[in-house]
Amino acid sequence: MSTYANDAQLSETILDKKVVYPGLIIRLEHWDVTLPDGTQCVREVACHIGASAVVALDEDNNLILVRQQRIAIGRITVEIPAGKLDAPDEDPLVCAKRELSEETGMTADHWEKLTVLDTTPGFCNEHIHIYLARGLHAGSRHPDEDEFVDVIRMPLPEAYARVMSGDLHDGKTCLGILMAYAQQKNA
Amino acid sequence: MSTYANDAQLSETILDKKVVYPGLIIRLEHWDVTLPDGTQCVREVACHIGASAVVALDEDNNLILVRQQRIAIGRITVEIPAGKLDAPDEDPLVCAKRELSEETGMTADHWEKLTVLDTTPGFCNEHIHIYLARGLHAGSRHPDEDEFVDVIRMPLPEAYARVMSGDLHDGKTCLGILMAYAQQKNA
Repeated sequence: MSTYANDAQLSETILDKKVVYPGLIIRLEHWDVTLPDGTQCVREVACHIGASAVVALDEDNNLILVRQQRIAIGRITVEIPAGKLDAPDEDPLVCAKRELSEETGMTADHWEKLTVLDTTPGFCNEHIHIYLARGLHAGSRHPDEDEFVDVIRMPLPEAYARVMSGDLHDGKTCLGILMAYAQQKNA
Repeated sequence: MSTYANDAQLSETILDKKVVYPGLIIRLEHWDVTLPDGTQCVREVACHIGASAVVALDEDNNLILVRQQRIAIGRITVEIPAGKLDAPDEDPLVCAKRELSEETGMTADHWEKLTVLDTTPGFCNEHIHIYLARGLHAGSRHPDEDEFVDVIRMPLPEAYARVMSGDLHDGKTCLGILMAYAQQKNA
């Protein structure tokens, strides 16, 4: 059933890029491309600096989560700690450690990369580097000045059940929880 | 460790919204908001119409996947079939059936909602409704004119292993695969 088995038959070529709006978080660009059949079209790309996120588990297998208002979707969400890279070439592990500390006050002894998530590659280049952190130590929180977050603990099996029941919705959070839970089940 | 246990202490109030760029796929808006401490700031929101995606499994427990060039991230990706709603109020199940048919030519007898994914709620309101489809019937593909996709089949356990090893990256795809696999394991 493979229709275009050859990668070349799927590939688009970029002819030109222009910034149509230099936003605060994303830079909106329009790229002129040539499609595999030779026709041209415009692709809209939301350019994002990238981010890191942390599945942090304490000694009792509780997940450290943050509750925060996400004005874009009009709800208070439950998410794993996360935040943007400081620069496109920042080590994402450095970013992960900073965001965990800023939002929850915690540091961790053991870090493991779970995966890199493409949040919505149809129109956006955002990658989120997701880490598993263990061996947690409490410290003082120091969130950004426009960041109001509530830190909670939730047993990992409960978090897993809440993803499976459709009660948690955030992409990085759902993927991080399911991967951490599956790792434990398969260990 | 809960710092702002009360939802009101997390809530932002929207004072004004303005469209800063009416794009092709997203409408970029800046919203003036009042933070919980009374200060004001601007939140950037990428407004998206929403989408549906389909975890389609054949009678041999193979997943139906599409390979396509995602110019935003510069790679050919492996994803579950998906596409945008035709209108904000379109029934997402109607959209899911259309996208499965357009991209793969298939129809399905049995549909089940898995979840609704918020792809990246820090700056975007995109929701993706993810369905599980079974009882597949082959038909003819009719992709959009700017859409070049390669349809492949992959055993669900292999797809699961490729998510866990970090080899698949697309958010809706990873979440759909892990949820479908976990459902089978727990059945």
